[in-house]
Order: sequence, then structure tokens, then C-alpha cells
Amino acid sequence: MPYSAYFDVASTAPPHPVARQALLAALEEGWADPARLHREGRRARLLLDTAREAAAELIGCRADELSFTSSGSRALHTGIAGALAGRRRVGRRLVVSAVEHSAVLRAAEAHEADGGTVARMAPDRTGRISPATVTDALTADTALVCLQSANHEVGTEQPVAEAAGACRASGVPLLVDAAQSLGRGTVPGAWSLLAASAHKWGGPAGVGMLVVRKGTRFVAPAPRDEREAGRAPGFPAVPQVVAAVAALRAVREETAAADGRLRALVDRIRERVPVLVPDAEVVGDPVRRLPHLVTFSCLYVDGEALVHALDREGFAVSSGSSCTSDTLEPSHVLRAMGVLSSGNVRVSLPTGTTREEVDRFLEVLPRVVAGIRERYAAPPEVGGAGAGDDTGDGTGDDAGGNEVTVDALGLLCPRPVIELARAMRRVRPGGVVTVLADDGAAELDIRAWCHLRKQEFLDEEPWGDDPEGDVRAYRVRRTGHPIPADDPGARRVPGTPSAGDPRPAGPPAGDDLRP
Amino acid sequence: MPYSAYFDVASTAPPHPVARQALLAALEEGWADPARLHREGRRARLLLDTAREAAAELIGCRADELSFTSSGSRALHTGIAGALAGRRRVGRRLVVSAVEHSAVLRAAEAHEADGGTVARMAPDRTGRISPATVTDALTADTALVCLQSANHEVGTEQPVAEAAGACRASGVPLLVDAAQSLGRGTVPGAWSLLAASAHKWGGPAGVGMLVVRKGTRFVAPAPRDEREAGRAPGFPAVPQVVAAVAALRAVREETAAADGRLRALVDRIRERVPVLVPDAEVVGDPVRRLPHLVTFSCLYVDGEALVHALDREGFAVSSGSSCTSDTLEPSHVLRAMGVLSSGNVRVSLPTGTTREEVDRFLEVLPRVVAGIRERYAAPPEVGGAGAGDDTGDGTGDDAGGNEVTVDALGLLCPRPVIELARAMRRVRPGGVVTVLADDGAAELDIRAWCHLRKQEFLDEEPWGDDPEGDVRAYRVRRTGHPIPADDPGARRVPGTPSAGDPRPAGPPAGDDLRP
Repeated sequence: MPYSAYFDVASTAPPHPVARQALLAALEEGWADPARLHREGRRARLLLDTAREAAAELIGCRADELSFTSSGSRALHTGIAGALAGRRRVGRRLVVSAVEHSAVLRAAEAHEADGGTVARMAPDRTGRISPATVTDALTADTALVCLQSANHEVGTEQPVAEAAGACRASGVPLLVDAAQSLGRGTVPGAWSLLAASAHKWGGPAGVGMLVVRKGTRFVAPAPRDEREAGRAPGFPAVPQVVAAVAALRAVREETAAADGRLRALVDRIRERVPVLVPDAEVVGDPVRRLPHLVTFSCLYVDGEALVHALDREGFAVSSGSSCTSDTLEPSHVLRAMGVLSSGNVRVSLPTGTTREEVDRFLEVLPRVVAGIRERYAAPPEVGGAGAGDDTGDGTGDDAGGNEVTVDALGLLCPRPVIELARAMRRVRPGGVVTVLADDGAAELDIRAWCHLRKQEFLDEEPWGDDPEGDVRAYRVRRTGHPIPADDPGARRVPGTPSAGDPRPAGPPAGDDLRP
Repeated sequence: MPYSAYFDVASTAPPHPVARQALLAALEEGWADPARLHREGRRARLLLDTAREAAAELIGCRADELSFTSSGSRALHTGIAGALAGRRRVGRRLVVSAVEHSAVLRAAEAHEADGGTVARMAPDRTGRISPATVTDALTADTALVCLQSANHEVGTEQPVAEAAGACRASGVPLLVDAAQSLGRGTVPGAWSLLAASAHKWGGPAGVGMLVVRKGTRFVAPAPRDEREAGRAPGFPAVPQVVAAVAALRAVREETAAADGRLRALVDRIRERVPVLVPDAEVVGDPVRRLPHLVTFSCLYVDGEALVHALDREGFAVSSGSSCTSDTLEPSHVLRAMGVLSSGNVRVSLPTGTTREEVDRFLEVLPRVVAGIRERYAAPPEVGGAGAGDDTGDGTGDDAGGNEVTVDALGLLCPRPVIELARAMRRVRPGGVVTVLADDGAAELDIRAWCHLRKQEFLDEEPWGDDPEGDVRAYRVRRTGHPIPADDPGARRVPGTPSAGDPRPAGPPAGDDLRP
């Protein structure tokens, strides 16, 4: 299968031809140390100064407010640490949204470890932080507020102009993470700090930008040196900076021309996916969003399998499912939004994406999802009863019919929720299913499943004597809402045990499909 | 004048053709996020893993001990912070040499600001730290020792293998800053941590390397992320990493072939400069040194003027003179060595340097130095008496002849020492000249002048009620050693005042030559 469509520009964009060209030229002209007095040094200094002027104009700031850092993450880390240090006398309270980039959240954790406090603003179910939430967060001891211009996982735009206004009225600086949006336009409002990352718009990796507006109290974290106004120590990568700025200028023109078309393509995906794929949930704000980005999740699907299957079909996407992360935790963004994380797919379209590519994606997707669900369904020879065997009236193979405990220990997303779906058809309405699970995504997906299936999530609590506290018991009450007989999760007669025998003999629960 | 010779590879080397080629190829193949599961991501991951294996082999470590950072400075900052944190329970004492790169010294200052202690090992007059100095520094509460493989300003090699042995015997980790030497070979000895910087060997800027040997206690500073074993947060610059490693392999072969020839060229400079340029001091260890680097200082010369004049003649060099730094402080290396800092020139030869280029440099240099000294000498129409007017017998225009105070306040290097030289000829042997100066380089240059002229440096102390303590009084006693009548510093009849009138009316002392 030829590789046809890279739909992951929100991770990183391929190098823009202009970036490549500028990098090559600047490798010739700008390799020397811009701090040196000889002509090679002065030439590099000139390139760096010119790039700074051009970038400042594209951002809408003064050149002396802009420092080039080694990445967007570094820009965020330095911006947050510097602003917090600058306002230490006011207070040590940092306010962030719960859906910020992990670089912001990690900086917040570091601040907590250092004795500071952090308030995390909760989004609504679309991932949006309301202006009122920002205003409410502004206490007298608030040192800094961080709010992204748009969310990197679901595309929802945040009300940065309103937030900046509220912050300014309270005398609190606002740091805007503009990584996802700076390539598409300036960030509105009277923000105090801004961070961005060049590889997001087709510049080379290794270039971040940090703007600290004049008048913002700022003490850059140590160790410092004399580079970049003390805000980015180390030898500056002048050729990459030049390329980053050249790419920013080029993509700004291109996105201005393309965003309407991309918005329509994304609208098409948002509209068609729920129609074409059963139990798929499109997340994020449908209107106040990045033009090119859409995220959806598919029940009973393993995100890693989905990404691989789409890759084999020629589509590069990313996923916030737990099985696709190093930590086996689902995306903190999806978690904060309270939406399904299983079978999660983020599609982010490059500027040149065609209608045909999107149509082919929409053609391939339902087949791919069905194939993965099929893998999770019991082969006929294993289960006693197949799909449709259960009439959905609450009678099942459980003797009691009112209490079922399901052991999903050791099972990874999406399997705990599949076990839940199966067990739910074995209790009568009013009956309760308890799922024992240690997968990090289980709570999110069980709650999301209840939301989708209109079943009642009762509670969750630690279970047994697991010292790490990872094993939890989740209780769900069956409501009067039917669980469809063709629910892909419920199709197989459970091979998992019922209450009283939570850990059966037999092959250990592992990462593979059970026999 | 055509630009003929870039003699500043110790600042940064021009991109190696192999680096350029590898960068271009890797921009095509390795631009994606290596953490992503799709094929573009896997391809970037493969390039990154392959580069890590290759670099580890060239360094002499395991691939999983090596993290790529965004610069050599970052590698040092992270390495120092991580090793200190890992041994916090042992103690908070950091030992560094006084001639380390400023990134190490800045990290040490940050450690002090955070409540830790720092011991600074003094070098001898060649810039070398003796193995005994390292051994003596190893107390029970020492958390980490930092020693460079070779000094970046004067080229002196440090005894890292011996230092590593002593540290290992005491159970203290040794961090080696190998920035100046890794392109020329592996670092010997059982060091625990190593840092390097790719642009020093012709790789792109923006790539550092940090090795943390297995078994070294290490807690990477927060905020961390999942990249590079938690030691270098932010999106990795895979194309630059690939280029950096390709360049390292290429230059290793080239330097192995060229270093003998470069060593001979540097020997020639070391030998000829003191012959060709009066009052020039070649510094650094003549034998245990980097093959391609030599540094010397010229009395009564302004380093900035010298760099500019050599640049006009087609030679790019750098300088550790105070007038060439942002801070107006002389190089901390020259200061720690106690050598002259005025008119300082560092020559660092690229691999392809020819004998002809070096000879032309040696031809140009004396003329350039003489020209600058001429500028500092009084034009005939200003002074009453010219050079040779003073017989050197100690009689001059000072009435007493035994005490002279010179006001050099506001004068920058090399002018305080020029004022001293002039005044010294106005006192009799046994008499004392007091120089009032606020230039950061004054102490160093006055002491070095005394050393060169065999005069007696008595003391220095704060002077007046300057709240910053920058104004110092330096006292020098005239010995029996003659001060040559043609001493370029002494040629002009002083326009500066004598004792009792330290701040005369008239034009303020400024940066320009006095009338």
C-alpha cells in the first residue's frame, strides 16, 4: 500500500520547502558564533537579528521581547519558571488548564514539588475552558495563568483574548501556549507571555520561541548565560532559527488560503464518522476549533491496533489511547474532558489535503474499525452463545442476575469495557456489575461507556490490598435503557468469571486476546 | 582583503560537508515524531536509534547511557544538576575547576544559590589542574567533580584519567566536559558522566550529548518528559542528531590524520609570536595541550581592536580580553591562571590549515599589534616630551618621586596598565605607584605587568566610598629592574594627574583615546 496521507501535522509538520531552502542557505552564512567579533560572527549575528525582527512582526511583538529557545517545551518551561520567579512576592499559585500540553503540566508539577501550588481549570466536555472559569481562578495570590490558544489533541480553541483581558484586569500575567495556532495567525489579546514551536508549522525541530512582553516581571531560571536575553542558554542554532522564521512566513500565507477548505474537510469527517462507524464519538468543539484537526474515539477498539491498521492503509494518524503511550495512561486531555479514550484517533490535515484523500479515509475507517472489533469478538468455536443469543431482557448465564463481578485485572484498554458490556447483559435492570481493573484507562472508558449506553455509573474505589492502589472496583447499575443485542462489546459470551472467583486458574491475563 | 583563514574552530567549526549531506537526507527521512507509531514515526525512530548506537561507539559508552540534548551547555547543566540530585544524601559539595566552561561555572553558581557549596580547583599558570589538586578536593561530602578534558581557551589538557581514578577510588562521580576534545578522540579513564557539543566538531548547532554511565546515581532535573530517558525534554531534532553523529565519525578520521601537522603549526606560532611581538605572552601548557589551539596576550593592546584588525587582514580569531565580552570582564580562565588578559588572542586551527596561512598570520600579527600600540601612544603635538625623553633614572615630572597616584577610573583595558607603565618611570626604585581603577581587567593586567616587568605588586584594596566596590587602589613598588625606555606603554608623557589630585577637571575619562 503506498503511503498516501500524512494526517498527523499536529504532532509535527513535514519540513516546509522554504524551511529546507533557508536552512541550506543559512548553514553557509550563519554557522558561526553570533557573539564573535569577526566577520563570520557578525554575519551570523545579522542573520539572527533579521530573523528575530521578522518573527516578531509575524507574532506581533517587539524583537527584544522574543527569545529563540531549543524547543516549544523549553519555551514553556522557561516561560513558566521565569514568570513564577518574577512574581514570587505576589504569591506562588499557578493556574493552568487541565488540557494544556504536557510540558505545561510537567512544569506545574515541578512547581508543586518546589512548594508552589497549582490550580487546574477544568474544561467542559468539548475541551473548552470558559472565560468565567479563568476569572474565577484569579485569586490575589495568583502568580501566573497558562492557557493554550487551541488544544493540541481535540482542536478546541480557547478564549485567550477574554482570558488575557481578565488577567490584565487583575494584574496577573497570562502565558499562552500558541504551539498549535501560531502557524495559522497571531494570537489575539493582551497576553503577557507566549510560547511556540517551529516544527509544528514546518520549521525544523529544535526551535522554540518565547515572548516576554515588556513590563512582565520575569526572572529566567538558572543557570543562565548571555544568549537570548538570558532566557535560552547554549550556543544558538542560527540556521535552524532562520529556517523556522522563513517557514512561519510561508505557511501563514498558505494557511490563510487553505483553512476554509480544511475546515470543510474536517466538517465532513465530523459529520460522517458517527454515521459510518457505530459507537464512535467525535470530540472537541465543533465550531470554535482549529480548521484542520478532528478527534474521535471508537468503543471496543484498541488505539494502537487502529493506528497500525490505518497506517497499513496509508494513513498516518496519532492516538490518545492509553495503549499508544509510554505510560499506558490515556491522554490527560480526553480524561479531563471525560470522554471515551479507547480507539482514539486524531486526524490533523496538512494544508494540501484533498477531498479524495479524506473520502478514502472515510471509506477505509469503518472497515478497519470493524476488523479490530471482530478480533475482540469470540470466534464461534469458543463461546457457547453468539450475538443475538441474549435477548437483552436481563436474563443471562449468571445465576443470581443481580450482582456480577468481572475480573478485568491485567487487561488493557479496550478490554475492561468489553468485559463490562458483556456482563451488563447478564444482570437484570437494577442489577449491578462490578468490574475489577488495573488499567489506567478503565475508569474513563467505563464512565464514557455508561454515558454512551445510558447506564448508571455508581462509584469506584480501591480494591483488595494492592499497595500501589492501581486495582479499582468500578460499579455500574443497569438502567431501563436497552443494551443493543448487536453491541459489539457484548457479542461474545464471557469467558471471564463471575463474583466469588475473581482470579481463575488458567492462562494469565496478558496483552494478547484471550483464547 | 579576501577572507582567508577562519582560525576560530574552538568557538564553532564550519559545518562539515558530511554533516550537511546527512542533515539533508535526514530532513527527508527523519522529520517525524519518533514517538509515533505510524511509519513516518518509526522511520524517524530508526534513524535516532541508529545514530545513538553509532555515537555511543564513537564515545565509548552504551547506547542507553547516551542522551541527545539541545546543546553542550544543556548537557552540562542537566548532567551537573542530575548528578548532584542523585547524590544529595551524600552531600551537597560540588567541585569544579576554576577554568571550566562558563556553563559549568554558571551551574555551580546556581547550585550555590540553591544552598549547595562549591569548591573551585585552582590551575597552575599553564591552566592545568594537577591530579593532586583533584585528590585533595575529594572530601566525604563531595557529590560531584567536574573537570574538562581540555581547556577551551588555552588548550591545556587536564589529567582526566588520573582524576577519574581518584574519584572512583573515593566513590565520587566525575563529569568530564569533553566539548573541545571529543571530535579528536575518546576520553580516557573511568569517568561517570560526559558532556559534549556537536557544533565544535562540524555538526550542526543545537545538538549536545550527555552520557550517564550505568551505576551513576542520577535524578534528572524537572520538568522532565519521556524523551531521551527523561534527560532532555522537548521534541527531538532527529535530522540534526543524525548529522552530528555523521560529522563526528568523519572528523575523527580527519583529525587523526591532521593532528600531527596542526601540532607543528601551533608549535611554530608558540615559538614565533614572542620573538616577533614584543611583550607578548604565550599561555597554556606547551606540550600537554590540544593540537590545534594556542593563546597569547599582548601588553598595551586592546583585544577588541586586535580582533577587528586581524579580521580586516583576513583572520578570524577570538579573544578573552575584557573589552570583547558582554560583561567587560576578562576571561575567567586567564584570570584563574593569573596571566595577562589585555590583547588576548586565541587561535584555533581547522583541520585543513596550511603552513602558508600560519606564516601569513605571523607576518601580519606584529604589524597589527604595533599599529594598535601606536594608537595608544601620544601623538607628538600633545605631549611635551616624547619617547626617550625619560632616561629611566627615576627622575620625572613628579616632584616627590617616591609616591605617585594615577587616576585610571573609567579607563578600560589596556589603558590602566598603560597609565601604570608611564607612572612607574616617574618614581625612583623603591617608590610606589598607586593606580585607581574600576575596570574588571585591571587587577589581572597590573599583576601580569608586574610579573612581566619584574616589578613588585604590593596590594589592592577598595578605594573611596564606591558602594559597588568596583573602584580599587592597586599599589606597585618599583624594583631595581629597569623599565625599558622604549616600553610602548611608557612612551607618552602622562596627561594623567599625580597624587593629591586623583580626579582632575577636564573631559571625563571615557572609552576613547585621551587627547
